[in-house]
Amino acid sequence: MAARGLPASKGRLAIIAGAGALPHHVAEAARRQGEDPFIIALSREADAEWTGFDHSILAIGDFAAISRTFEAEGIDRVVLSGSVRRRPEWRDIRPTLSTLAKVPSVLRTLMSGGDDAVLRMAMDLIEASGARVIGAQEVVPGLLAEVGPLGARVPTEDDWRDIEAGIAAANALGALDVGQGAVAVGGRVIALEGAEGTDAMLSRVAALKTDGRVSTRRRGVLVKLCKPQQDERADLPSIGPSTIAGAEAAGLAGIAVESGRALILERSRVVKAADRSGLFILGVEREGGRGRR
Amino acid sequence: MAARGLPASKGRLAIIAGAGALPHHVAEAARRQGEDPFIIALSREADAEWTGFDHSILAIGDFAAISRTFEAEGIDRVVLSGSVRRRPEWRDIRPTLSTLAKVPSVLRTLMSGGDDAVLRMAMDLIEASGARVIGAQEVVPGLLAEVGPLGARVPTEDDWRDIEAGIAAANALGALDVGQGAVAVGGRVIALEGAEGTDAMLSRVAALKTDGRVSTRRRGVLVKLCKPQQDERADLPSIGPSTIAGAEAAGLAGIAVESGRALILERSRVVKAADRSGLFILGVEREGGRGRR
Repeated sequence: MAARGLPASKGRLAIIAGAGALPHHVAEAARRQGEDPFIIALSREADAEWTGFDHSILAIGDFAAISRTFEAEGIDRVVLSGSVRRRPEWRDIRPTLSTLAKVPSVLRTLMSGGDDAVLRMAMDLIEASGARVIGAQEVVPGLLAEVGPLGARVPTEDDWRDIEAGIAAANALGALDVGQGAVAVGGRVIALEGAEGTDAMLSRVAALKTDGRVSTRRRGVLVKLCKPQQDERADLPSIGPSTIAGAEAAGLAGIAVESGRALILERSRVVKAADRSGLFILGVEREGGRGRR
Repeated sequence: MAARGLPASKGRLAIIAGAGALPHHVAEAARRQGEDPFIIALSREADAEWTGFDHSILAIGDFAAISRTFEAEGIDRVVLSGSVRRRPEWRDIRPTLSTLAKVPSVLRTLMSGGDDAVLRMAMDLIEASGARVIGAQEVVPGLLAEVGPLGARVPTEDDWRDIEAGIAAANALGALDVGQGAVAVGGRVIALEGAEGTDAMLSRVAALKTDGRVSTRRRGVLVKLCKPQQDERADLPSIGPSTIAGAEAAGLAGIAVESGRALILERSRVVKAADRSGLFILGVEREGGRGRR
């Protein structure tokens, strides 16, 4: 495979790995692109098995150790990948000399900032160490969803009503820096994603249908959009095999994600699973209109 | 107790009772106001025990039977009380002659309308039978939350940040006709209420804290607002003893509800339980500013 999209560089790529399957997927794809990624697995977050990759396990607030690792390994580019569910506690923060002056604002952000504020802060601190933060999609070609259907199925007219209702809700949430996901069934939004994450929201939808609180005669759609103000180098919304399984268990008709700003993990597995389950996967624009199909 | 707020009337009051504790509470309070309420308990919804009250159990779509009951009992005022979790299926609709022409639009609303549209439709159909729909608060004095603290506790500065974050989220949701509730912890909104209801959302918050996905060092606030476009005769947001128990289990600092547009069920029990648990209960304005304290 050609190393297209690989930035000209002499340094090593680091992947700061949070929870979920994404970091391992990114690491393997980076290796296929000729990189030799060094993994900084966040303690209490990263759950992948990193044998086979050079790696350290470090606490998220331990800037001193992270900075030492950058220097020792000659890191010049950093990908933040996977979710970070636990914010560092103030007592876990171990600043370096160069980050010491920032500690008060770091603490303030940790105490009260939205997820975006915390991410922006983490990226600023990394870049203060001289490495550049890049998006996983800059390392792994084909990770971003494009406009239109990704598999064999396409939405029906009814599905389009759910897509539009879900887009309106996800936009409203995103503007508040709350969440990225919503589920609409029969044209009504019935579930909104908070800190529990997409998989937990889909389980809730399955339970609402089992309880009869949401009709099972209507299937429904999961919509995931990027927050409007989101830094595209971090935490883009993603779907993967577990999302397809959850959507199928919730009886949904399909999934709509923001084209160009959402990641499809293990695309070939995801598309095969969606086709087998009769689910559509659709890249949409955040403005939503059907004219853009 | 004086019958203040009781409309001059010769007819009988009906309470169409959905799920939850509210309908029984309204029925007993109405009786204390000198009413002799007739209860139409919705089948598959109402869960209170109605012995001791004149009542029928009817399906929500059975307008023919509901209309006959209005006539037989001389009903001139109707209170809709309690939640309706299951929308009627089209095959359950039994129209009367006067509602027959409305069936196509009824079906359309049931298939695709928001909760508000379904409620407005139900109220139109009832008023077409000649009875007037009134709010529970017009029958039961003291049911509405007023501005300010209801119990002994008041919010701290940190709590005010959560209240403001929760108001912003609940406003955004309400404008989309999605939900009425949000929970903010440490200034961040972490949970949004969809079709699952407030109690289920509070359980989710408790689980997020147990998982460590939300810090337990910050308490947090539940905010419930009325949707901006909501008809105040039906389905005002309410809190009751189960809300206090859920908020306590989720480790929250308190509950903020919209003054003048939210109901406090079993107020004395609620206030006593909140005081015992160290929770504040606060009536707020939807615009949220602290100047309005």
